[in-house]
Amino acid sequence: MSPAAAVSRRGLLGAVGGAALAVGAGAGAGWAAMRSGDAEAAAAAGTPVPFHGAHQAGIATAVQDRLHMAAFDLTSDRKTDLVDLLRRWSSAADRMTRGLEVVEGGAGAVADAPPDDTGEALGLPASRLTLTLGLGPGIFGAAGRDRFGLRRQRPAAFVDLPRFARDDLDADRSGGDLVVQACADDPQVAVHAVRNLARLAMGTAAVRWSQLGFGRTSSTTPGEQTPRNLFGFKDGTNNIAGDDAESLRRHVWVDAAADRAPAWIDGGSYLVMRRIAMRIESWDRTSLGEQEDVTGRHKLTGAPLGGSTERSPIDVPKLPAGSHVALAHPDANGGRRILRRGYSYVDGSDGLGRLDAGLFFLAYCRDPRTQYVPMQTRMARSDRMAEYLTHVASGLYAVPPGTQPGEYWAQRLLEA
Amino acid sequence: MSPAAAVSRRGLLGAVGGAALAVGAGAGAGWAAMRSGDAEAAAAAGTPVPFHGAHQAGIATAVQDRLHMAAFDLTSDRKTDLVDLLRRWSSAADRMTRGLEVVEGGAGAVADAPPDDTGEALGLPASRLTLTLGLGPGIFGAAGRDRFGLRRQRPAAFVDLPRFARDDLDADRSGGDLVVQACADDPQVAVHAVRNLARLAMGTAAVRWSQLGFGRTSSTTPGEQTPRNLFGFKDGTNNIAGDDAESLRRHVWVDAAADRAPAWIDGGSYLVMRRIAMRIESWDRTSLGEQEDVTGRHKLTGAPLGGSTERSPIDVPKLPAGSHVALAHPDANGGRRILRRGYSYVDGSDGLGRLDAGLFFLAYCRDPRTQYVPMQTRMARSDRMAEYLTHVASGLYAVPPGTQPGEYWAQRLLEA
Repeated sequence: MSPAAAVSRRGLLGAVGGAALAVGAGAGAGWAAMRSGDAEAAAAAGTPVPFHGAHQAGIATAVQDRLHMAAFDLTSDRKTDLVDLLRRWSSAADRMTRGLEVVEGGAGAVADAPPDDTGEALGLPASRLTLTLGLGPGIFGAAGRDRFGLRRQRPAAFVDLPRFARDDLDADRSGGDLVVQACADDPQVAVHAVRNLARLAMGTAAVRWSQLGFGRTSSTTPGEQTPRNLFGFKDGTNNIAGDDAESLRRHVWVDAAADRAPAWIDGGSYLVMRRIAMRIESWDRTSLGEQEDVTGRHKLTGAPLGGSTERSPIDVPKLPAGSHVALAHPDANGGRRILRRGYSYVDGSDGLGRLDAGLFFLAYCRDPRTQYVPMQTRMARSDRMAEYLTHVASGLYAVPPGTQPGEYWAQRLLEA
Repeated sequence: MSPAAAVSRRGLLGAVGGAALAVGAGAGAGWAAMRSGDAEAAAAAGTPVPFHGAHQAGIATAVQDRLHMAAFDLTSDRKTDLVDLLRRWSSAADRMTRGLEVVEGGAGAVADAPPDDTGEALGLPASRLTLTLGLGPGIFGAAGRDRFGLRRQRPAAFVDLPRFARDDLDADRSGGDLVVQACADDPQVAVHAVRNLARLAMGTAAVRWSQLGFGRTSSTTPGEQTPRNLFGFKDGTNNIAGDDAESLRRHVWVDAAADRAPAWIDGGSYLVMRRIAMRIESWDRTSLGEQEDVTGRHKLTGAPLGGSTERSPIDVPKLPAGSHVALAHPDANGGRRILRRGYSYVDGSDGLGRLDAGLFFLAYCRDPRTQYVPMQTRMARSDRMAEYLTHVASGLYAVPPGTQPGEYWAQRLLEA
């Protein structure tokens, strides 16, 4: 190969010198902006989102435009294989989130070996890529065999989700021993990241399922606008903001001492995944009035019914009984909240003339037992929107805290 | 509903006043820029792509970031139903490509009726949405029955594709009576368009298959950079440019008189669709040298093997025999070219630990008999890349010319 082979993915950029400079700056302006919650500014600058930190990136990070998520099943029962995999993954994740190849010169170093980077993100900026790891119950010996000797490290909050009313789950699209959430403003960057992690996993773990999703498009969506879901309604108005440190502390981050959790998950969280198919065609035949009663919001403005603007205060007793917003509101859940981070998906059609579309629901919480489980138990029974929804896949994952340079994902668990 | 109900999708924009102004300007600067081929400038301004014109938009239009394509099967044999459908579709397409609702105030006009617009694109700009219609063989009575009396209007060039070597086609993902290619810089805008056309088709046509795709991301990809496919190689370097009027005339647009084609398709084209699964995991285990020999290009630079830059002239005899570029090059095809407009896709995983990913190949040509068919016949047999590819779906569609205001899609055919 020519000397070009040694050029990093970032080095090929040329035209986006600003972003390249910001990478070199490390803990410079972009980093500080992201950490202080001023995510819009960092996004505008195209600054990479730091991989290392007290918490994993991709949770409080301002939501990126696109998702590629993949779950993996371990094909090895050797703890050293798992540790090696997480070491490789952490190194690759650190580099890819900075807009670099998996290894220096990885896409084109040696002609007679497979490239160490598959190359399709060469020349693309970091695109705010974040990679977030979750651990499935299988890591803790859930299937009976405690294959890694980690059963005692399983937090009490890491329960098995109950079967909720109306659940129609596809096991092949659910669960998994490891899950990686890749979010970026460019789908190619997210796909590249997951695909290279899958490549690095060969022999140790295999893809169980993967899912693409889309949300707002930061380059064209006006900044303050709440995105609309596939039912045409604004969704996420009262979500926990990534810069609301107090709410994150209360509702998202595990405090091992206060929560009586194992030390390794201190600063971590729990990730709930639900693939929620939306009955688009039924919804589209429903009257506007019914859609608004079911949702609890006005369609055009996003205001709660009776309110005048999207941010009008919600008075739960005044909303239609069983409306989606009324049931999801913290006032109806003992003040408990979750951090939602879901994406819309459209996966072709279902063979019956209907779009296979819906919400790939992702939410982070501090204790699923007191947050997601009771909320969903009630919503599955009483939410009027449930008539138009089917939960077709499910997963709950324990999310380790962030890593420091030199550390690998979940190291505190595996060396506990 | 409040007065806000009468506000158009565009009227809700606020923050993107520039784009809104450009809409009002109609045939103003943005339009002129697009028509003169200065697509980058128009794209940067967020200007809508005009729906009306001599040719349909979405063919020579600068490629947008995202694709949602859907095929429909007619459930009615009445020609008046088909005409009514195409009238409704054309009106909706004209409005949606301008960033407007399907009908004025459609998302929220009457509380006790289903909305005439599903609403999820409210507040989003036009995002360079184009909608392009293709007609399947069923319109021309291919299945035996000439249900619309249009058999005599079927162009001779509109052949049935032969079965190519290695084809492994899924009928449920192939063909269709009608196909709509929706391209936009925002997936939500493309999905909204297809979903609303599907809604308007209820009772006349049902979705047969649909496909999402992604390509370059215009907000982050440096302008002149050729995008990379999922094999990590630059793809499309020598494609026909949308502003190359002479090549479009020679290779893309049907000239009814010169081509001895029915008058209705004058200014139209033919669309080839091939869903090409890429064996990502096999490719990733292949050496760089082999990957480059198979492709005929250097991976990092995109230069043809032996060349120094991506645009270095290609000397077919000097490339490895059977390399992909050598076989696809016009010099190997009697000077014949096609306009490629494909997108990458990732549709989860295949249940065997592999990504269900590849190229959703779309190409426009003036006569499939002399362009696509001989090219693919030879490539299916001799292309060394074929070992890593499986064609899993296929379609050929006759593409009517563009419409003028007041005209509907394919009107010249249906009133011939």
